[in-house]
This record gives sequence, C-alpha cells and structure tokens, in this order.
Amino acid sequence: MSAKVWLVGAGPGDPELMTLKAVRALNAAQVVMIDDLVNPAVLEHCPNAKVIPVGKRGGCRSTPQAFIHRLMLRYARQGYCVVRLKGGDPCIFGRGSEEADWLQAHGIEVELVNGITAGLAGATQCGIPLTLRGVARGVTLVTAHTQDDSSLNWRALAQSGTTLVIYMGVAKLEEVQQELLAGGLPAGTPVAMIENASLPQQRECRSDLAGMREAALAFELKAPAVMVIGEVAALGVKAAVDRQATA
Amino acid sequence: MSAKVWLVGAGPGDPELMTLKAVRALNAAQVVMIDDLVNPAVLEHCPNAKVIPVGKRGGCRSTPQAFIHRLMLRYARQGYCVVRLKGGDPCIFGRGSEEADWLQAHGIEVELVNGITAGLAGATQCGIPLTLRGVARGVTLVTAHTQDDSSLNWRALAQSGTTLVIYMGVAKLEEVQQELLAGGLPAGTPVAMIENASLPQQRECRSDLAGMREAALAFELKAPAVMVIGEVAALGVKAAVDRQATA
Repeated sequence: MSAKVWLVGAGPGDPELMTLKAVRALNAAQVVMIDDLVNPAVLEHCPNAKVIPVGKRGGCRSTPQAFIHRLMLRYARQGYCVVRLKGGDPCIFGRGSEEADWLQAHGIEVELVNGITAGLAGATQCGIPLTLRGVARGVTLVTAHTQDDSSLNWRALAQSGTTLVIYMGVAKLEEVQQELLAGGLPAGTPVAMIENASLPQQRECRSDLAGMREAALAFELKAPAVMVIGEVAALGVKAAVDRQATA
Repeated sequence: MSAKVWLVGAGPGDPELMTLKAVRALNAAQVVMIDDLVNPAVLEHCPNAKVIPVGKRGGCRSTPQAFIHRLMLRYARQGYCVVRLKGGDPCIFGRGSEEADWLQAHGIEVELVNGITAGLAGATQCGIPLTLRGVARGVTLVTAHTQDDSSLNWRALAQSGTTLVIYMGVAKLEEVQQELLAGGLPAGTPVAMIENASLPQQRECRSDLAGMREAALAFELKAPAVMVIGEVAALGVKAAVDRQATA
C-alpha cells in the first residue's frame, strides 16, 4: 500500500464495533496516531506499527492540532502509511474533513473511514430506540461544545420532533437543560446520560429534563458521555435492570 | 453459541464497512434472514448458513413483517443461531428495536449490532463534512416515509442549524422541498442526493433546494438514496470531479 494517510474511526469503544476497513488500514499502517478516546485494545491489529498518542481531551493536557497536522504530513512524505485513529466516527464531530482537506492541499492522498459513532452505539446498548416509529421521526446529533461559533437553534431542536443526542455535554449540562426548557421541551421529557458507551464500564443515568442536573451530580457523571433526550429515552430501562441482576 | 437472534447492521453497502461483531455473528449463524438492501457480498462470512431473503422494498413485492417475526421465532425455538441482516444500522429507521422487543417478549435472547448508516457513509464518500465546525453544529437524520404517523416539524428542522440527512425521500421529494421552503430554508440551500451510498455504483447529484426536483428528474435519481441538505452539501464537489477524471 502506498504512502497515504487514513483517517479512521475506531468506533465507540467496543473493539468489535470497528469496521473491516479500519482493520485493513491498521494492518497496513506503519505509523498510527491515536486519540485519547480510542480503546487501545484495537492496536492488536497493528502490532508492528509505531504508535503515537495524540490525545486532545477537553480541559486536560493536549496535543495542538497544528502539531498533529505536521506530524501526519512528515510521516506521509517519508513514504509511510499513516493511520490517524479517532474515537467514534471521524466525520461526526471529529474534524475528519478538516484534516483531510489540509493533507490533500499538501498533496497527500487521504482516505476517510467511517466508524460507529458513540451516540448511536450508546443508545443501542441501553435499549433506547432513537427513531422508534410513532414516537420519533428521526434523530439529531449535536455538540454542546462552544468553541464552535456556529449557531445552534435550541428552540428549533426542542420542537423538531426528533430525538436529541448531545455530544460533549457534560460540562455544558446546565446550558443544555436551560436552553431546551426555554425552547419549549416539557420538563418531564425523558433523559438518558450514557458514560463510556459500548465499553464494559458503560454506565447509564436516567432522569428527565427538569432533574438531569441533580441526577448527573448524584451519579457523578463524567466525560466522555452522550445524552439522549426525547420520549424514547424512557425506554430500555427494564433491560438495564436485568443486566445488573445477572452481572 | 446458543440459540439466539442477532439483529445485525450490514452497513451501507461496501462490505468492508461492516463491523467485526457483525462478521462474528455471521460466522456463528445457521440461519441468515437478509433484507433487499444488504449487499449479498457479505454472505461470504456465512458460507454454510441457510440464507432466506426477506426483502421489503417500498412499492415492490415484499415479505410481511408478521411473517418475518414468526420465521425468526420458529428458527430460534428450533435452537438455531439466527442472524437478521439489515442494510445500514438496524437502529436507524430499521425497526431493530421493534423486532427485538417482540422476540424478547417471546422468550428469545436478542442482540442488536449497530452498522454504519447509509446517510453518514454517503456523505463521507462524497466529501461532505456533515458537522463541519463553524458551519453546522450537528446533523439530523429523518425519514420522509409517511406510513409513520408521528409528527415531524419541518419548519423547526429548517431552522435548527443542523445539516439534514433525509432517508427514503425519493418518492417524497416534492413534499420535502415544499416543507423546507415553507419552513424558511433559503431556496439556494445546497442539496446533495446520493444513490447507492458507498457502493461502486454510487452516484451523486448536486443541486439546491429550489432546483432539487428538476435535478433529480434529469439525473433519474432512484431509491435507495439519501439527501443531504445544508450549507455543507456544496462541499466535496471538486473531489467528485477528480474521481470521475481518474475513473
């Protein structure tokens, strides 16, 4: 395989939720640049590659984006097959296209590989049917991260009739709650907050829109977590109780 | 592996976009019930299984849902490991949870396996960054299929600030266009219509909200297709032209 950068989604955490294409890219990789949120277990697919951690977790010590760009470029120009491995899907809040554009502008061949995104996997693992017929006509994935300056119309989201899945919302919980209440979403709207989606240490906290802050505090909810807000978020609770009983 | 029904996403079409877990389920399967929209190439992972086509494509001859339910139940009760293989993600417009609930109510163990959903894969293949920072704070997946009687607020969707990805919209193109225009989305909003996402025969038709009907007609757009509507749908066009030039 010729020099190239693969921007690859490692999926939500469970190493088995990675795609065959991601595995092929890892098999071919000589250099793997891996994000914090990727389960290191997936590195079994690239035992001979040089692995470089390039984490960028909010609030912690992090690798600057420009440095990551230059590092990918340097290895690719040296002729190495490079895999940039990201948690979830590099195309959903993952800057995949920004990195691809930058590399292509520098003459590097790039291939993006989708992964299962954490919000969808977390809901499935909790038995929450995001697009249940008769209840939700769709699902909206949004980030609460505010370094993004584009406008998010919370009032419109509250009224859209879709299930909301909110990424990077733990630090913005109060804002999310207030905006959705102000937007007209009923206080009793069910909420599920899912930590470490699809991993053995996954935890789920159920609440409603009015009580989600107190519930998250009592639960000691920590990032990374996704929040599911909508009528469907009340479903699947029995399955969770059954799992606990057999654990 | 004991008798069980796996409800598995085969991904958007490219057999390499299937997960390792889906492959494991197919390897273990004795009976595979396969939807129309699944690429039959993935059956290489279950060479010894009995394969039963249970297609349900809109408008064509189809297998009634109740019959599919009973068939899964019958094989599971006979002790077979059954895989119900669906296109995309069984949890996104795939009735995965409905089938899971029904089977569990009949005492059958069920496991749902997410797949890459066609809307996200199609956008990636066309170079469309659905959640590009500064342009879109998120993405909304909705179905235009109207046998679903839950309310979809197109006006709210138009104003949400998220990129819209519309499934099963080919037959409802005029309705989608009119609702979004009436909802206040500008006539010049970019639109990409993607047929056979992620397959070699993938085709993409770019237009804008005002011109999407004429464009789809001229293009002879056919289902299965997804539509991406929002500012980001204007991106990635150059990459498509480059691909054609090298094809």
